[in-house]
Amino acid sequence: MSQTTTKIADHIQKTLMPAGEFHPSPPTPPPPGSEEEEKWVWAEIKAEARRDAEAEPALASYLYSTILSHSSLERSLSFHLGNKLCSSTLLSTLLYDLFLNIFSTDGTLRSAAVADLRAARFRDPACASFSHCLLNYKGFLACQAHRVAHKLWTQCRRPMALALQSRISDVFAVDIHPAARIGKGILFDHATGVVIGETAVIGNNVSILHHVTLGGTGKSSGDRHPKIGDGVLIGAGATILGNVKIGEGAKIGAGSVVLIDVPPRTTAVGNPARLVGGKDQPSKHEDVPGESMDHTSFISQWSDYVI
Amino acid sequence: MSQTTTKIADHIQKTLMPAGEFHPSPPTPPPPGSEEEEKWVWAEIKAEARRDAEAEPALASYLYSTILSHSSLERSLSFHLGNKLCSSTLLSTLLYDLFLNIFSTDGTLRSAAVADLRAARFRDPACASFSHCLLNYKGFLACQAHRVAHKLWTQCRRPMALALQSRISDVFAVDIHPAARIGKGILFDHATGVVIGETAVIGNNVSILHHVTLGGTGKSSGDRHPKIGDGVLIGAGATILGNVKIGEGAKIGAGSVVLIDVPPRTTAVGNPARLVGGKDQPSKHEDVPGESMDHTSFISQWSDYVI
Amino acid sequence: MSQTTTKIADHIQKTLMPAGEFHPSPPTPPPPGSEEEEKWVWAEIKAEARRDAEAEPALASYLYSTILSHSSLERSLSFHLGNKLCSSTLLSTLLYDLFLNIFSTDGTLRSAAVADLRAARFRDPACASFSHCLLNYKGFLACQAHRVAHKLWTQCRRPMALALQSRISDVFAVDIHPAARIGKGILFDHATGVVIGETAVIGNNVSILHHVTLGGTGKSSGDRHPKIGDGVLIGAGATILGNVKIGEGAKIGAGSVVLIDVPPRTTAVGNPARLVGGKDQPSKHEDVPGESMDHTSFISQWSDYVI
Amino acid sequence: MSQTTTKIADHIQKTLMPAGEFHPSPPTPPPPGSEEEEKWVWAEIKAEARRDAEAEPALASYLYSTILSHSSLERSLSFHLGNKLCSSTLLSTLLYDLFLNIFSTDGTLRSAAVADLRAARFRDPACASFSHCLLNYKGFLACQAHRVAHKLWTQCRRPMALALQSRISDVFAVDIHPAARIGKGILFDHATGVVIGETAVIGNNVSILHHVTLGGTGKSSGDRHPKIGDGVLIGAGATILGNVKIGEGAKIGAGSVVLIDVPPRTTAVGNPARLVGGKDQPSKHEDVPGESMDHTSFISQWSDYVI
Amino acid sequence: MSQTTTKIADHIQKTLMPAGEFHPSPPTPPPPGSEEEEKWVWAEIKAEARRDAEAEPALASYLYSTILSHSSLERSLSFHLGNKLCSSTLLSTLLYDLFLNIFSTDGTLRSAAVADLRAARFRDPACASFSHCLLNYKGFLACQAHRVAHKLWTQCRRPMALALQSRISDVFAVDIHPAARIGKGILFDHATGVVIGETAVIGNNVSILHHVTLGGTGKSSGDRHPKIGDGVLIGAGATILGNVKIGEGAKIGAGSVVLIDVPPRTTAVGNPARLVGGKDQPSKHEDVPGESMDHTSFISQWSDYVI
Amino acid sequence: MSQTTTKIADHIQKTLMPAGEFHPSPPTPPPPGSEEEEKWVWAEIKAEARRDAEAEPALASYLYSTILSHSSLERSLSFHLGNKLCSSTLLSTLLYDLFLNIFSTDGTLRSAAVADLRAARFRDPACASFSHCLLNYKGFLACQAHRVAHKLWTQCRRPMALALQSRISDVFAVDIHPAARIGKGILFDHATGVVIGETAVIGNNVSILHHVTLGGTGKSSGDRHPKIGDGVLIGAGATILGNVKIGEGAKIGAGSVVLIDVPPRTTAVGNPARLVGGKDQPSKHEDVPGESMDHTSFISQWSDYVI
Repeated sequence: MSQTTTKIADHIQKTLMPAGEFHPSPPTPPPPGSEEEEKWVWAEIKAEARRDAEAEPALASYLYSTILSHSSLERSLSFHLGNKLCSSTLLSTLLYDLFLNIFSTDGTLRSAAVADLRAARFRDPACASFSHCLLNYKGFLACQAHRVAHKLWTQCRRPMALALQSRISDVFAVDIHPAARIGKGILFDHATGVVIGETAVIGNNVSILHHVTLGGTGKSSGDRHPKIGDGVLIGAGATILGNVKIGEGAKIGAGSVVLIDVPPRTTAVGNPARLVGGKDQPSKHEDVPGESMDHTSFISQWSDYVI
Repeated sequence: MSQTTTKIADHIQKTLMPAGEFHPSPPTPPPPGSEEEEKWVWAEIKAEARRDAEAEPALASYLYSTILSHSSLERSLSFHLGNKLCSSTLLSTLLYDLFLNIFSTDGTLRSAAVADLRAARFRDPACASFSHCLLNYKGFLACQAHRVAHKLWTQCRRPMALALQSRISDVFAVDIHPAARIGKGILFDHATGVVIGETAVIGNNVSILHHVTLGGTGKSSGDRHPKIGDGVLIGAGATILGNVKIGEGAKIGAGSVVLIDVPPRTTAVGNPARLVGGKDQPSKHEDVPGESMDHTSFISQWSDYVI
Repeated sequence: MSQTTTKIADHIQKTLMPAGEFHPSPPTPPPPGSEEEEKWVWAEIKAEARRDAEAEPALASYLYSTILSHSSLERSLSFHLGNKLCSSTLLSTLLYDLFLNIFSTDGTLRSAAVADLRAARFRDPACASFSHCLLNYKGFLACQAHRVAHKLWTQCRRPMALALQSRISDVFAVDIHPAARIGKGILFDHATGVVIGETAVIGNNVSILHHVTLGGTGKSSGDRHPKIGDGVLIGAGATILGNVKIGEGAKIGAGSVVLIDVPPRTTAVGNPARLVGGKDQPSKHEDVPGESMDHTSFISQWSDYVI
Repeated sequence: MSQTTTKIADHIQKTLMPAGEFHPSPPTPPPPGSEEEEKWVWAEIKAEARRDAEAEPALASYLYSTILSHSSLERSLSFHLGNKLCSSTLLSTLLYDLFLNIFSTDGTLRSAAVADLRAARFRDPACASFSHCLLNYKGFLACQAHRVAHKLWTQCRRPMALALQSRISDVFAVDIHPAARIGKGILFDHATGVVIGETAVIGNNVSILHHVTLGGTGKSSGDRHPKIGDGVLIGAGATILGNVKIGEGAKIGAGSVVLIDVPPRTTAVGNPARLVGGKDQPSKHEDVPGESMDHTSFISQWSDYVI
Repeated sequence: MSQTTTKIADHIQKTLMPAGEFHPSPPTPPPPGSEEEEKWVWAEIKAEARRDAEAEPALASYLYSTILSHSSLERSLSFHLGNKLCSSTLLSTLLYDLFLNIFSTDGTLRSAAVADLRAARFRDPACASFSHCLLNYKGFLACQAHRVAHKLWTQCRRPMALALQSRISDVFAVDIHPAARIGKGILFDHATGVVIGETAVIGNNVSILHHVTLGGTGKSSGDRHPKIGDGVLIGAGATILGNVKIGEGAKIGAGSVVLIDVPPRTTAVGNPARLVGGKDQPSKHEDVPGESMDHTSFISQWSDYVI
Repeated sequence: MSQTTTKIADHIQKTLMPAGEFHPSPPTPPPPGSEEEEKWVWAEIKAEARRDAEAEPALASYLYSTILSHSSLERSLSFHLGNKLCSSTLLSTLLYDLFLNIFSTDGTLRSAAVADLRAARFRDPACASFSHCLLNYKGFLACQAHRVAHKLWTQCRRPMALALQSRISDVFAVDIHPAARIGKGILFDHATGVVIGETAVIGNNVSILHHVTLGGTGKSSGDRHPKIGDGVLIGAGATILGNVKIGEGAKIGAGSVVLIDVPPRTTAVGNPARLVGGKDQPSKHEDVPGESMDHTSFISQWSDYVI
C-alpha cells in the first residue's frame, strides 16, 4: 500500500468513523480520477464546511456563501473565484458566469481540480481538509483560474485570457501566462510570487513551492520556457530559465538557478544549479519527490559535494 | 546610552520641541513595555496624523477614518485591519469585531504591537513616524493580524484562523501559518513574499526582510520548521528550511539557503549557506543584528572566504 | 536598422496593413519621445481595444470603461490606476483626481509612460499589444503610480506619497520608495516582489524582472541604495544591496546577490555575484541587455567559469 | 387598426427603415405573446444599445455590461437585477444565479417581461425605447423581480421571497408582497411608493402610477386586498383599501381614496372616491384606460359633479 | 384575555409545540417590557433564522451574517443597520461601532426595539415572524436608526444625527428629523415616504402607514409639528400639518389632510379632514386602533356622512 | 428689510461674530447671484464643516472627503454626487468626471446651486447650515444632478441623461425627467416621491414639498405637464396634472389634486382642488409663499369654505 493510500485510509478512519452508522458511503474513497471521486470530494467538502459552520458561527456566513449554498463543486468554485478575482471594472457576476460556463462544459477541468485538491490534502501536512484548500489556498485557486484562462486562450479568446491572468497576478501574486500548459494533481504550495511563462509545460503530480520562476531566456519569441516532467518537486525560490527539460521525478533545490537540463530522478541544487552526485553520474532517487515532498534529503550529499 | 535610546531622544527633540510649551508630557518616552508606553505611542500617532491631515487635506479623510476618529490604538488597528482584510464574503464589520474583541481582551497583543511599531520606527531609516508604520507597513499589519490568527488557533478556532491566514496572504502577500509563534519587537521590512511555516518559532527583536522563507522539509508532519533566536537578522530572499536553530543574534545573508544550525552571533551566507569564518571557528559579531540592521558588514569577509 | 526598429516596422506591417485603405496615418510610428508619439500610441491603444471589444463582448464593458470612453491616455491611465489602487478608505474618485491632475500638468510623466509602453511592447515577446500592457501589466501600472508618488514626494507631500507606495505594494506587490528616481523606457516584467529603496536611482531603458531587490545596507540612513545605469538588465530574483554602481549596459544574472560595483557592459552572476570573465578582465558584451533582454547568453561562460 | 398597432407601425417605420436594406426581419413586429416576439424585442434592445454605445462612449461600458455582453433577455435582466438588488450581505452572484435559474426555466415570466416592455414602450410617451425601459424603469425592474419573488413564494421558499421583497422596497421604493398576483402587460409608471398587499390581484394590461396603494383593511388576516380587473388605470397617489373589486377597464382618479367596488368601464374620483356620473348610473367610457392612459378626460364631468 | 394576548398564545401554540419536548422555556412569553422578554424575543429570532437557514441554503449566508453569528439582539441590529446605512464615505465599521455603542449603553432603546418587533409581529397580518421584521421591515429599521439619531441629537452630536437622518432617508425613503420624539411599540407599516418633522411627538403603540406626513406649518421655527397620542392609527398617505393634537386612540383615515385637533377615540377623514359623526358630537370607538389596525370600519359612517 | 434679509443678518451675527477679529470678509453676505456669493457660500460651508469635524471626530472623515479636501463647491458637489449616484455598473469616477466637467464649464449651474443652498438655508427652519443642505438634503442633491441631466439632454446626450434620471430615482426616490426645465432658488423639502414630467416648467424661488407630482394627462405625447410660476409653494402630496398654469406666487395646499389653472397669488386646495375664496373671486395673498413657506394660513378660510 502506497504512503498516499495509507494516508487516505487514515483520513477515512478519522473523519468518517463510525461510518456504518451515519454514512452509508463506502469506507474507502473512490479511485482517483473516477466520476465518483468528484462527488465524493464534494460531499467531503460539504461535510467539513458543515462541521466548521457549527463550531464557528462567525464563519458560517462565509462557509454558506462559498460552499454550503452550492449544489456542486463547479458552482462553489465559480462563485469563490468570481468573488476573489472581480474588480470594480470586471464584475463578479461576469466572472462567475464565465467560470461556471467553462467548468460546466469541460469535465477535464473539474477532474483536474479534484486531483489538485487531493494533491494539497495528501501532500501538504498543513492542509487540514479539502475545504481548507478550496477556500484558502491561493495556489489552488490561481491554478483553477489559470485552467479557465488557458481554455479561453485555446479558444482564441486571448484578451479575456490575458485579463484573467492579470487579475490572478494582482490578487494572488501568481503570474501564469494563459498559454502555459499545466497537468493534473498540481500543488502550488504558498504560491506567492510564482511566475510561469508562455511556452512552459508542466506534467502531472508536480509540486511547486512559492517564488518559483519558469522563465524565458528573453532572447526570442518562440519556444523558450522550461518543460517540467511528471512528479517533479521544485523548491522555494528556484528559478528555471530557458527551454530546458526537467526530467520526470527530478528535484530542484530551494533557491537554485537552473539553466540546464536535469535528468529524471536526479536533484539539481545551487546557483548556478549542478546535479547532486556530479553531472556525469548524478545520484538517482527512488521516490517521486513531487508526491513525497522530500525537500531536503539531498542536504548531506550536497554539503559533501559543495564544500 | 544605546543607539536606539539615542535615536529616541533625538526623535523627541525633533518632534516635541519646544515640548514645555505645548506638551506637558515628559520629554522622554516611557520605558519600553510599560503601560504608559502604549498611551504615549498612541498619543504620538495621533499628533503625527493631525499634522499630516493639516498639511494634506486630500489625505485627511483617510487619516480621520483610520486614526483620528478612534479612541485607542486597538480600535484604530482593528478598524484598519478590518477594512484591509475584508472581502465580499468576509465583511469588514465581522473582522473589525473579531479584531477588537481579541485586542481588547489580550494586553500582550497590544504591547507586542507597540514593540513592533517601535521596531519599525527605530530600525528602519525609511520609517518616518509611528503612524507611517501603522498605516502603510504591510509587514506590521500582517504581523498584527497573524497574532490574532494565532490567538484563535490556540483557542481551537482553527477554521477562522486559517481564513485569516488566507486573507493576509491574498492582501499582503505574507503567508504565516497561524500556529507559528512570533515574539515581540519584530520588523518585517517590505514583507512581500514572506512565508512562515506551522512549527516555526521566532524570538524577540528579530528583523526579517522580504521574500524570506521559514519552510518545512516537507518530509514529515511533526516539528519541521526553523527556530529563530532573539535579535536575529534575516536578509532579503533568504530561505531557511527544516527544524534548524538560528542562534540568538545570528545574521543570515540575503539570498542564502540555510539548511543547517547557525550558532549565536555568527553569520551564514550563500547557497547553500556556510558560516562566515568557517564552520569550525565562525566569526562572532558583537552587536545585535536584528536591532542594528547591519546587513552587509560581512561582505569583505565573505568575498575573502568565497573567492 | 536596429532590431527594435525592425520590430516596429513588422508590427506596422501586421496591424495596419493595408494601411493605405483604412488608416490615413503614416505607416511608420513617430520618433520616440516626440509629441506625435503620445498621440500615435493612444490611437493604437484605442484601435486595439476596439478590435478586442468587438471580438469579445464579455470584455467590452471593461475595455470601454478603462480605455474607449476616455479622450486621452492620461485620463485612461488615471481612471485605471484610481480603480486599481483605491480602497474603502482611499476612494477611487480621490485617487483619480490626484493622478489626473499630476499627469495633466507634467508632460514628462506622460512621455515616460509612453516610453514604458514601448519598452514592454517591443522587449517582451509575451506583450501582444500596447493595450495589453496598459490594462494588464502590474509592473507598468506600479511604475506609473510610483512616478506620481515620486512627484508628490518632491512636492513635499510625503504622507500622500507614502500612502500611495503602500497601496501599490498591497495591490501589485511592488514596493518602490517614493523618493527613488526612475528613468524612462523601463520594463518591470512580471513585477511581483520588486523592492526598490529610498536612495536608489535607475537610468533609462532598464529592464528589471520580478523579485528584484535594490536594497539598502541597513546600516545608515544616508545614500544607501544601488545606482543602476542606462540599459541594464536585472534577472529574476536578483538582490543588489548597498550604494553600489551597476554600470551602463551591465547584466545581472537571475538569483544573483550583488554587493559590489559592476562595470559597464559586464555580467555579474551568482551568490555572491562575481563578474563573468573574472574581476580583473571581465567579459564585455556589445548589445544593450536592458533592450535585447538576453538573459542567458552568459551561461556557457558561466558554466566554464564556475565549475 | 388600433392606436397601439399604429404606434408600433410608426415605430417600425422610424427605426427600421430602410428595413429592406439592413434588416431581413419582417417590417412588422411578431404578434404579442409569440415566441418570435421575445427574440424580436431582444434584437431591438441590442440594436438600440449599440446605437447608444456608439453615440455616447461614456455610457458604453454600462451598456455592454448590462445588455450587449449578454446572449439573451433573461441573462441581461438577471444581471441587471442582481447588480441593482444586491447588498453587502446578499451578493450579486447569488441573486444573479437565482434570477437566471427562474427566468430560464419559466417561460411565462419571460413573456410577461416582454409584455411589460411593450406596455412601457407604447403607453408611456416618455419611454423612448425598449432598452430605456429595461435599464432605467424602476417600475419595470421591480415588477420583474416581484415575479421571481412570487414564484419563490409559490414554491414555499418564503424567507427568500420576503428577502427579495425587502430589497425591492429598499432599492426601488416599491413594496409588493410576494404573494400578490400580477398579470401581464403591466406599466408601473414612475413607481416610487407603490404598495401592494398580500392578497391583491392585478389583471392584464393594467397601468398604475406612482404612490398607488392596494392596501388591506387591517382588520383580518384573510383575503383583504383589492382585486384589479384587466385594463384598469390607477392614477398617481390613489389609495384602494380592502377586498374591493375594480372592474375591468375602470379608471381611478389621481389622489382618490377608494373603499368601494368600482364597476367596469367607470371612473372613480375623490376622497372618498365616488363614481363619476353618480353611483346609480355612472358614466361608462369606451376605451381601455389602462392602455390609452387617458388620465384626465373625466375632469369636466368631475367638476360638474363635485362643485 | 385581550386579542393580542390570544394571538401570542396562538403563536406559541403553533411555533413551539410540542414545547415540552424541545424547549424547556415556559410556554407563554414573558410579560412585555420585562428583561426576560428581550432574551425571549432574541431566542425566538435565532430559532426562526435557524429554521429558515436549514430550509433555504441560498439564504443561510445572509441569515448567519445578520442574525446567527451574533450573540445578542443589539449586535445583530447594529450589524444589520451598519451594513444597510453605510456608504462609500460613511463606512459600515464606523456605523456599526456607533450603533453598538449606543444600543449597548441605553437599555431603553433595546426595550423599544423589542416593543416594536412585537408591534409588527402581532399587528401586521403579513408579518410572519420576528426575524422577518428584523431583517426586512424598513419601517422597523428606520425607526431603530432614528432612535440612535435622536440619542445623538440629545447629546448635542447634531451633525452626526443629521448625517444619519440623511442616510435613513436615502436608503429607506423614511425621513424623520432626529429631534422628533417617538414612543415604544411603534409600527411603521411599509414605511416608504414617511416624513416626520423636528418638533413632532409620537406616543406609544402608534401605527403609521406609508406616505404619512407629520409636517410643519412652515411659518415659524418653534414648536410646529403634530403631537400624536398613544394608540393612534394613521392611514396611508395621511398628511397632518401644524402643531395639532391627535388624541389618544384616534384614527386618521387614509389620504386625509388634517389641519385640526382630533379628539381621543374619534376618527378624522377626508381632505380637509373632518370628524366622523360631526365636529360637535363625533362618534367614539371603543378599541385602540393603533393596536387593532382597523382601517376601514368608518366607511359606512363616512359614506353616510359625506354623500 | 425683508424677512429673509433679517434672517441672513441674524445668521451673520451668530456665526461670524466677532467677525472683525477672525474674518476680514464683510459682515454681510454678497448680493445673491453675484460671483462673490459663490465664494462666500463655499467659505461658509468649509467653516461649518471644520467646526463640525472638530466637534465630532467620528464624522471628520466624511466631512474631509466630501467637503474639506476640495478646492471648490463644484468639486465637492461632483464628488458627493458621484459617490451617491454611482453603482456597480456606473462607476463613481465616471460620474465624478461627468459632473465636474459640466459644473466647471457652465456657471449658471453653479449659481443655481448656490441659490438652492440659500433657499434651503433661509426657508427651511430645520436647515441648520449650508453644509447640512449640501451633505444631507436629497432634494438639493437630486436637483443639482437633474440640472446636469438636463444639460446633457439639451446636448442630445439623451441615453446618459436618462441613465442619470434613473439613478436619481433609485437613490433619492426623486424622479425628474431630464427635459423638465427648473429655475433657480428651488427648495425640494424632504423630496421623497417627487415626480416631475417631461414638459414641466418650474420658475424661480419655488418651494415644493415631498410626494408632489407634476404629471401628464397621459393622453398625448406633446406639451402635457404643468407650468409652475415664480414663487409658488406646493404642499406635501399635491398632484398637479396636465398642461395647467400655476400662476406666480400661487399656493397649492397639501394633498390637493389640481387639474385647473390657478391664478397668481391665489390658493388652491382639496381633491379636486378649488380656489380658496371661490373660482370667480379667489382670495389673493400678499406674500410670496414659495419664499415665506406659509403652508397653512388658508386653513380658516378653507374650513369656512368647505364645511
